[in-house]
Amino acid sequence: IRELAPLVRQSRARKILIDHHLEPESFADLALWDPTAAATAELVFQLIVALGDKALIDVPIAECLYSGLMTDTGSFRHPNTTGNVHRMAAELVDLNIDVSSIHRRIFDNVTIDKFRLLGYVLNEKLRVLPEYKFAYITLTDAELKQYRSKTGDTEGMVNYALAVEGVVMAAILIDRNDEIRISFRSIGNFSVRDLANKHFDGGGHRNASGGRSKLSLAETEQKLLAVLPEYQQLLLETV
Amino acid sequence: IRELAPLVRQSRARKILIDHHLEPESFADLALWDPTAAATAELVFQLIVALGDKALIDVPIAECLYSGLMTDTGSFRHPNTTGNVHRMAAELVDLNIDVSSIHRRIFDNVTIDKFRLLGYVLNEKLRVLPEYKFAYITLTDAELKQYRSKTGDTEGMVNYALAVEGVVMAAILIDRNDEIRISFRSIGNFSVRDLANKHFDGGGHRNASGGRSKLSLAETEQKLLAVLPEYQQLLLETV
Repeated sequence: IRELAPLVRQSRARKILIDHHLEPESFADLALWDPTAAATAELVFQLIVALGDKALIDVPIAECLYSGLMTDTGSFRHPNTTGNVHRMAAELVDLNIDVSSIHRRIFDNVTIDKFRLLGYVLNEKLRVLPEYKFAYITLTDAELKQYRSKTGDTEGMVNYALAVEGVVMAAILIDRNDEIRISFRSIGNFSVRDLANKHFDGGGHRNASGGRSKLSLAETEQKLLAVLPEYQQLLLETV
Repeated sequence: IRELAPLVRQSRARKILIDHHLEPESFADLALWDPTAAATAELVFQLIVALGDKALIDVPIAECLYSGLMTDTGSFRHPNTTGNVHRMAAELVDLNIDVSSIHRRIFDNVTIDKFRLLGYVLNEKLRVLPEYKFAYITLTDAELKQYRSKTGDTEGMVNYALAVEGVVMAAILIDRNDEIRISFRSIGNFSVRDLANKHFDGGGHRNASGGRSKLSLAETEQKLLAVLPEYQQLLLETV
């Protein structure tokens, strides 16, 4: 709960935690915590149903629950998409929410600056190393400024690297002035959490993790390329 | 059924049509036709269930049915995504198909050439006309050749234009040597079918249609820009 933590701790109200993340902070009087849930929205929905209040779910509530479920499952494509996820989506869709409009409002409000930056990256900055089944992107501070990049404009960019044919591990290295931030993605059993944890002060999930470096962007890139041989066999075995 | 038609007509076998498209060809002895179905795969699934054979659906069959359902609903985002679509997906997912792998095999095998072309287009060829809530892309034959474009490399590109903030209509104009092919997309009530039909010898769906022109690429672009004022009020009213 990050910067809200002091306020929450001070409050004398009863506190309820509903979460599906690993290792949530401990502050709550009641907890509904299930790391096997696809989304916190799934737990909220289960709670509403368990309380016997399903009939109170109106369109605005259904839109919020659907938005949480849909985004946390990557539009129903991540491995956390169980049959129950689809059954919950079915019940929400039956309430006449506009799924197409929700997707559009969440994903299709892209500024032209963001598309120009993405275009530049795909055309000039995406590097593929087939011998490691690895693809990556680097972005300097000057490049971000040139495209008037705002917070969030680089979000999801690493997924393009992961979508290159044959690639099983992808990274984006971004110069954030005080440090280099790295996002890693992988598929299957290859753990980018282990790599990020061992070499880049990072952590996260097996297939989606982050790291950081106090070296320059060029030095961080060299360091990453230098550790790849250690993982080459695992990478080549991953399909 | 296009080029298969002569063979199908010659055959003396019993012919069954299963389809959800408008106005299917007439050749079948039995027809299971429902244009309100999200996908032909949905009708196939319903038929299997109605025949009492649901228990025979194994993983390969479930993967095929899921693939048809998922692609025809745009990964469960198009307006055709009903509660029944999600219930069918739930039953297939329960059979232990790997949804993440299916998405990856269908969408994430992108060649680096295709990404370079997409990057070039987003960086240099995407034009936005806010006064018409319209965005479009043109591609010359030379540009396609420069990026070694193969069939399918431009597929879906028009959706990037539609994802620009504020845009309700998008088009891509591609020089295919013998003619200019145009793909139109729109959201909400604005009908690109009507525009394509009236001005570009086209048709299709309200929100996704195609057209063609025997003019040059530059002339076709000028013609399109010239017809926009006729639709300006409708476009500005669309949200």
